[in-house]
Amino acid sequence: MGSPIDDLLAVLPADRVLTDSGVLAAHSRDEADLCDAGTPLAVLRPKSTAEVAAVVRVAAAHRVPVVPQGARTGLTGAANAVDGALVVSLAGLNRILEIDAGERIAVVQPGVVNAELRRAAAKEGLAYPPDPGSWESSTIGGNVSTDAGGMCCVKYGVTGDYVLGMEVVLADGEILRCGRRTVKGVAGYDLTGLFVGSEGTLGIITEITVRLRPAPAETRTLVAVYPTVPAAGRVVSSVVAAGHVPSMFELLDRTHLRAIEAYRPMGLDTEAAAMLLIATDTGAGADLAAIAECCRTAGASELYVAEDAVEAEALTSARRLAHPAMEHLARRAFPGGRGGLVVDDVAVPRARVADLVAGVEEISARHGVLVGVVGHAGDGNLHPVIVVDRASQSSMDSGRLVFDEIMRLGLSLGGTCTGEHGVGLLKRDWLAREVGPVGMGVHRAVKAALDPRGIFNPGKVIAPG
Amino acid sequence: MGSPIDDLLAVLPADRVLTDSGVLAAHSRDEADLCDAGTPLAVLRPKSTAEVAAVVRVAAAHRVPVVPQGARTGLTGAANAVDGALVVSLAGLNRILEIDAGERIAVVQPGVVNAELRRAAAKEGLAYPPDPGSWESSTIGGNVSTDAGGMCCVKYGVTGDYVLGMEVVLADGEILRCGRRTVKGVAGYDLTGLFVGSEGTLGIITEITVRLRPAPAETRTLVAVYPTVPAAGRVVSSVVAAGHVPSMFELLDRTHLRAIEAYRPMGLDTEAAAMLLIATDTGAGADLAAIAECCRTAGASELYVAEDAVEAEALTSARRLAHPAMEHLARRAFPGGRGGLVVDDVAVPRARVADLVAGVEEISARHGVLVGVVGHAGDGNLHPVIVVDRASQSSMDSGRLVFDEIMRLGLSLGGTCTGEHGVGLLKRDWLAREVGPVGMGVHRAVKAALDPRGIFNPGKVIAPG
Repeated sequence: MGSPIDDLLAVLPADRVLTDSGVLAAHSRDEADLCDAGTPLAVLRPKSTAEVAAVVRVAAAHRVPVVPQGARTGLTGAANAVDGALVVSLAGLNRILEIDAGERIAVVQPGVVNAELRRAAAKEGLAYPPDPGSWESSTIGGNVSTDAGGMCCVKYGVTGDYVLGMEVVLADGEILRCGRRTVKGVAGYDLTGLFVGSEGTLGIITEITVRLRPAPAETRTLVAVYPTVPAAGRVVSSVVAAGHVPSMFELLDRTHLRAIEAYRPMGLDTEAAAMLLIATDTGAGADLAAIAECCRTAGASELYVAEDAVEAEALTSARRLAHPAMEHLARRAFPGGRGGLVVDDVAVPRARVADLVAGVEEISARHGVLVGVVGHAGDGNLHPVIVVDRASQSSMDSGRLVFDEIMRLGLSLGGTCTGEHGVGLLKRDWLAREVGPVGMGVHRAVKAALDPRGIFNPGKVIAPG
Repeated sequence: MGSPIDDLLAVLPADRVLTDSGVLAAHSRDEADLCDAGTPLAVLRPKSTAEVAAVVRVAAAHRVPVVPQGARTGLTGAANAVDGALVVSLAGLNRILEIDAGERIAVVQPGVVNAELRRAAAKEGLAYPPDPGSWESSTIGGNVSTDAGGMCCVKYGVTGDYVLGMEVVLADGEILRCGRRTVKGVAGYDLTGLFVGSEGTLGIITEITVRLRPAPAETRTLVAVYPTVPAAGRVVSSVVAAGHVPSMFELLDRTHLRAIEAYRPMGLDTEAAAMLLIATDTGAGADLAAIAECCRTAGASELYVAEDAVEAEALTSARRLAHPAMEHLARRAFPGGRGGLVVDDVAVPRARVADLVAGVEEISARHGVLVGVVGHAGDGNLHPVIVVDRASQSSMDSGRLVFDEIMRLGLSLGGTCTGEHGVGLLKRDWLAREVGPVGMGVHRAVKAALDPRGIFNPGKVIAPG
């Protein structure tokens, strides 16, 4: 046995074994702030499942950590390198292997970008619903590994709801195929579901079979503006109680309305407490009209129903600008590249959405840290966005305090510490609080069963020790 | 440490520790033929999670097997006793703990009968979709443990799609709470999903949180009759290709049409090769009209669209009579209580439904064993029903041969050995063929991680050795 690099060069073409310091630095972390990242030993760019398996066998022989990476758009540090790790970039496994319109399934490699799969499905008159905000750049492998969500989830569920089967390289380099291609199937343990959301800690996913759906009918969209957060919260409850099933149900708080208006003036009401953006995609006007009535009854100060798809797109653009507008705000608040955002992710029972927004406002005011809230109000999954000065330890410390208080608030409202971003490094302590010692014991037992040497993405999801 | 019975009597009231031979015999098996069953040491009827945990601790101390049971309506022997086991009947844990209409969730104990939950949800204007054929008697705990399906699945998915969280007694008697009450949540490994469909081999489920849905709009129903099986198969493909989403899509083959007509004459065409029963529940007539056009184009010899709910119910009644009619047929074919049915369960890609039906016909003819096919054509999940003479070893042997040939056919068509009934004892060899040695290795590793002493439902799902 030579060095790990020698052994890698014996099983992979040299151009797939990268050790240049610039490449190593570029592959050291995802988009999460507040998370440590190490320096990998090498970045591997395998082109096949067999090459992934070869890398894993080398790593297992040398007991070297393996960190899988997609597009590194994650927000929890799950893809961050640890010192001396082999980073396995799945970006080169980027083929759509099959779209079977008759069975409404697609088989893809993990490096396929979400938007590419969506476009390929659309060509067949089908839809792949999961739409994380990063959909133009994030990969299906990363989406599956984090069980990513998006705006569609309120009607269509998260990534995991679409995964039928997969191929996974296990810790001993063996190749597992699990799941199925059929609509139904309950043969044995749901190993497919176990790998979904496991953030690269149990194996490396090298192929994924997903369900597709018929393309939805025309989307109809409205915006409603509220003078108070509780009024907006009432809309969530009343729409659910009335049995409506919107295809989008988003909330932007005042901080976001002001940030967007400062970034791209579009006539938003910057004195409003919250704006809701709601759509239906059944093609029937009656359901959106009934939702509009819920919006009115809850006390909307402004209500606008888009006349057509162009207007609907214009309304939706405010939501799409939320993140760049907050980045712009952070850059202006802390110039010189110091401004940063900690994007949090909490899901609470739908009836507690207003309590979460109000609680975050209170935390923000008490600590003097700017926090905006945006997200998927219709399923109770919101993103408090904390503005920090990366160059200031006290600002980063305050950001961390605010982050922890928001996590505590979410759990106290009957929520969970992550609705769609995952655990990674950022939230492993909060996962432990949420699931408790028995739950962590089961996590550790499952991890040890599948990865007895602990080579896969060590330190992610499960805190060491 | 006394005997297991002494130790059980120390932790449970005496009336919950049953050792009467009649009770033991009554709890020895579920409804599956072709499966062995042993004699338990005792049947326990705990009334609380704490009592379940106490039983498990006694079992763990004595290394005695634990077999959980619900209503014993399963079709794979998963609930069959093994000699000397403690059978834990969850029938006494039968309370609906909560229905939260605002959040569209219910929290139930495992012994709640499916129909009771449906009725309780309906009172709140909500629906609990999973509808296994046994829904009037089977329990939610059993439904979750087998990931049971039903006629709704073609639109609404299987039981597991509705399970948000649960409480589970683990092999050391510890109590795990996993999952969530929120719509979204991706914190940690999907342990909830791992217990779904694990057939009591990993733990004993003592509480379940399920999603509910808004009650659907009015259901509209049609029947279409076909002179050939391929013609009926074309309907499946064309309805899927056209993007329709029926809420029911059932098939009955000629054997079933004849059995029903002999049991309860209702004017069915006993010369037809197959009858399809299709419904939509959107309240819109247009979607069923479009599906009717698909039915016509495929060459229906008869097509009837129900005028109203009463007519729709009359059409659906033929499907509901399928099982009693086949039981009647078996009783007449083999009088004196000898007649039995082996209800198989195969899921294939939707385009292969006709190939499966035709293949089963060929197998049936070659072996001279009567086999009818009924099931959920719209999602490719069919039930070949094999008629056997329980008193004749050669008939049972032929039944087993036919069963195995059907399993082989299903896998050869790209299918899975079980679409909704599970593995139990009946299909563990077929599970091993389907998932292969690497897959079985992962199953064994997961089983050993969660149940290191192997006390939970030994021999089920995973074949010994």
